Order: sequence, then C-alpha cells, then structure tokens
Amino acid sequence: MSFADAVADYRQRLDQVVDGCLPPARQHPARLHEAMRYAMQGGGKRLRPLLVYATARAVGAPDDRVDAAAAAVEMVHAYSLVHDDLPAMDDDDLRRGKPTCHRAFDEATAILAGDSLLTLAFQLLAQDATADSAVRAARVARLAVASGSRGMAGGQAMDLAATGRSLNLAEVEAMHIHKTGALIRVCVLLACEGAALPPEQFSGLDHYAKCLGLAFQIQDDVLDELGDTSTLGKQSGADRARQKPTYPSVIGLSAARQRAAELISEARASLAGLDERADGLHWLAQRVIEREH
Amino acid sequence: MSFADAVADYRQRLDQVVDGCLPPARQHPARLHEAMRYAMQGGGKRLRPLLVYATARAVGAPDDRVDAAAAAVEMVHAYSLVHDDLPAMDDDDLRRGKPTCHRAFDEATAILAGDSLLTLAFQLLAQDATADSAVRAARVARLAVASGSRGMAGGQAMDLAATGRSLNLAEVEAMHIHKTGALIRVCVLLACEGAALPPEQFSGLDHYAKCLGLAFQIQDDVLDELGDTSTLGKQSGADRARQKPTYPSVIGLSAARQRAAELISEARASLAGLDERADGLHWLAQRVIEREH
Repeated sequence: MSFADAVADYRQRLDQVVDGCLPPARQHPARLHEAMRYAMQGGGKRLRPLLVYATARAVGAPDDRVDAAAAAVEMVHAYSLVHDDLPAMDDDDLRRGKPTCHRAFDEATAILAGDSLLTLAFQLLAQDATADSAVRAARVARLAVASGSRGMAGGQAMDLAATGRSLNLAEVEAMHIHKTGALIRVCVLLACEGAALPPEQFSGLDHYAKCLGLAFQIQDDVLDELGDTSTLGKQSGADRARQKPTYPSVIGLSAARQRAAELISEARASLAGLDERADGLHWLAQRVIEREH
Repeated sequence: MSFADAVADYRQRLDQVVDGCLPPARQHPARLHEAMRYAMQGGGKRLRPLLVYATARAVGAPDDRVDAAAAAVEMVHAYSLVHDDLPAMDDDDLRRGKPTCHRAFDEATAILAGDSLLTLAFQLLAQDATADSAVRAARVARLAVASGSRGMAGGQAMDLAATGRSLNLAEVEAMHIHKTGALIRVCVLLACEGAALPPEQFSGLDHYAKCLGLAFQIQDDVLDELGDTSTLGKQSGADRARQKPTYPSVIGLSAARQRAAELISEARASLAGLDERADGLHWLAQRVIEREH
C-alpha cells in the first residue's frame, strides 16, 4: 500500500498510541489530565508524526519502532501550541476551530498541561521498549536540542522579540528554522536513530528535513496572508495584524511562494539515494506546498 | 572532609557545572538565555543538588558522575518556581528576595525560560558522558516521572485546585508528595542509578528520600506560618492568605512540627545499612528540620 493510501491508518495509529500514553482523563489531578488530552485532540494534520512514520518506512524500520517517537513529537508540538496561545504570548482564542486550551480550561491549567506534555514526551522516548538504551538516550538528546532555547523555544522568543520590528531575510529565516524547522527536522532524525544508515543516505534525509521545515513555515506565512479564518481554523492575517515579520512581508507574496516551491523541489531531490519506500516523504513534501490550511 | 565542611565546595561545584551547561547569556536569543540564567541564580539553598552529591558520596560514586544529575534537578526546580510564580498561578513578585523572573523580564520570557530549563535538564541527562546509555535513559525516565503530571506538575495542579477548599490530612499529604516530594526523592534515585546497590540499601535510601521530601514540605508550611518576610525572602503567611490547605491548617502547628521531626528520625533510621560516608544524608536531614527559611 502506498503511503498516501495509508495516511488515515497512520493517523489512527498515532491516536491510539497517544491515547495509551496519556494519563486517563479521570486520574487525579483530573482537570490537568483532561487538559492534556484536550490539547492532543482536535483535528491537527499530524504532519510531524506522519513524517516520523514516513521516514521509518523509507529506512526500512517497522512502524512500532517509531510509535513512541511519533507520539513524542506530537506532544512537543501540542505543548508549544498551548504555551504560544497563552495571553502573555500570542493571546489566541481559537486553535483548529476550537477554543484554545487556556480558554477551554484556564491559564494555570494550560501552563501545567503544556509542561506535562513536554515532560511526557521525554518519558516516552526514555522508556521505549522497542529501542535499545543507546537509541533511547540519543533520541532524548535530539528532541531536547530541537525543542529548547537553541531550537523551538528559542524560535518563539525570536518571534516575540521581532513583533513590530522589521527583520531582514536572514533574520526571518533564522527565526523560522528555530521556531518550526527544528521540530520538523527532528522527526526525521528520530526515525533514523538506530537504523544504521550509510552516511550519504542520512545526509540526504537530513537535508530533506531541513528544506521541508523551512518550506512548511513559508507556506504557513503565505496561507496566513491569503487564507480565510474558516479554512485555517484560526484567525487569518493574524501575523500581519500583530506586525510580525513573515516571508511575504520581507520578500513579497509571489517570491515567498516561489521560495517554498524551490525548497520542496530541493527536499525531494535529496531523496535520490532512496528507493520507492520513500514515497511517503515525497507525498508529504508535496502536501506541504499544496495544503490550504 | 565531612560533608558539612564540603557544602560550600559542593554549591560552588554546582554553580560551575550549571554555568557550563547554560547557553551563554549573549547567545541569540539573548533575553531568553539571560532569563534562564537569572532563574538559576540567586541564593537558593541548592538542597536538591546537595542531596544528589550526598547520595553519590554515600554509595561511593565520584562527584563527577552526578554533576549532570545535580544540575538537571536544580533546573527542574528552577523551572517549577518560575512557572509557579506566574500571575496565572501564585502571582508572586518576590523569590529569594529578588524580583521573580516574570517581574525581572516579562511573562512570555518567563514561560519560555521555564520551558527551556526543563528541556535542558533532560538534555543534560541524555548527553552525560560519564554515564553509559542505560543509566542515561533510566535517569531521563526517572526525572520525567517525578516532574510530570503524575509528579511535580500534578502536585501544583492539586495545589491550585485546593486553594480555598478544605482538605483532609491524606489529601494534603498526597498534594505534598507530588508537589515537593517527588523531585526531592528523585535526587536520591538519580544518584543511585548505575551504582549497583544491594536491594535493601536501595530501599533504605528510597525510604529516606520519601520521608525527607515530605518533612521538607511540612517544614515549609510551618515556616510560612511562623516566618517573617525578610528571613523567608518571599511573602510570609502567603499560603494562609491564599487559603491554601497546609499541614498546620489541618492538624495544627505543634502537631505539624512533631510530624516533621518524626519523619526526619525515620529518614535517618533508614540509613542504618550505610557506613560513615552517609554523613551528608544525615546532615541534610537535620538541616531540613532546623532551617529557618
């Protein structure tokens, strides 16, 4: 079966893995556990877990070897959204068409739910019974580097600092690479861990992941500029309204779209050393550029 | 040299380890990295790292084998203080006599600094070059369990939910065991990891850690009731003012002091199987009950 045909199955698989990892909603403290579950639900694209599964497929690793990694990256993604949506940060009321976590619960619970999802992500990787301890430790380190102050959290800090300022292209790109790119890249790296790939295959996959991550964020900026609120499931034009520097604001909409398309071509070209099992990686790259939300 | 005589050296050692692990204050994004450093400074007692070093000493592990663990537990402690102090949580302006992180910087930076310290703690354990990968992975799992929704973060959620309500003794104890006890206990567990202890020695140390953690929080409640703001470095009577259930509020001040003293005796008694190298553990237990802030 092609990856494209299996996407619904992979999403369902992820939901089941996540459901099994999260504390039961009624377990004390119940409000916190409900908030963690709420943050993990709700129609996300699951791009990051799909990327983990697609990479595993490309390198010949069975799905169950990357279940924990797939759940962990989605938890880190969900935690980042919960914290970014807080009143002190982006102050968003809607996420994927539903009230944001602090709106559905309260700010304190949202902060703790984010903290707890981040913590649980590392626990999953460290306790993954399908991986030997070298792979477990290496994955924890990879995910921490990608998520911390020199990765995703640092990117969010750059984003906040940039609001209302003008940045040049290199600065916008650095912000995007940290804020969005690092976590997308690590999906590929986590799935490669332990696969004993030839160095040139690994480099190709890593380059694919870097290009994909940047293209994804450029496309996000483009959609924010173009989209309407009902399709996006969040406020459109929000970045512009907040005077956040984006790719389109720096190089124009048309050049931004072209840059995203070029990056996707470059990403796909860097898969040249892989066989037809890399179909999922090609499919995901295409989806990033063709998506509407 | 006795542990008591070496305490200043251990604190200095910890400061150096932490300084080497934190990103440089001027590294981009500088404001975030400054806030991380700010949160890790400022005259804390360093009880948790001292407990890591004292345990290592008791089980015959060299100091450098637990440097990463000592820094990691202090980072998790610091992150929890930064987030607990936020306006949406305890809304505190002072911590250790200095402005809290969100007062010295801003709320968004404080949230991200906390997130980043938590993330860095796991990175340190996962990359610890003095430990084999089995120990690294096991420590990450231990710290995550102690810090997450079924540990410290869950305890903070219980604490918030309890404000203005009355709890019975079992409920207050459960809250304390999660909120404070889990992280204190894990200091001992991290230092034992890889030491290949006889099971009864390990059980004794684990029991010591559990008693110590609970005694520490009871003493904290007692000091909050008794202390004055200048000695505590934070608002005294703050728990009572917020109508938070505490040990003294449930069983009375005198019974609370007696319970803390009993727990410390029990903690020390459970070290019976260890030799004179456990002097630091005895000293720390005594300090917990005799401290004034």
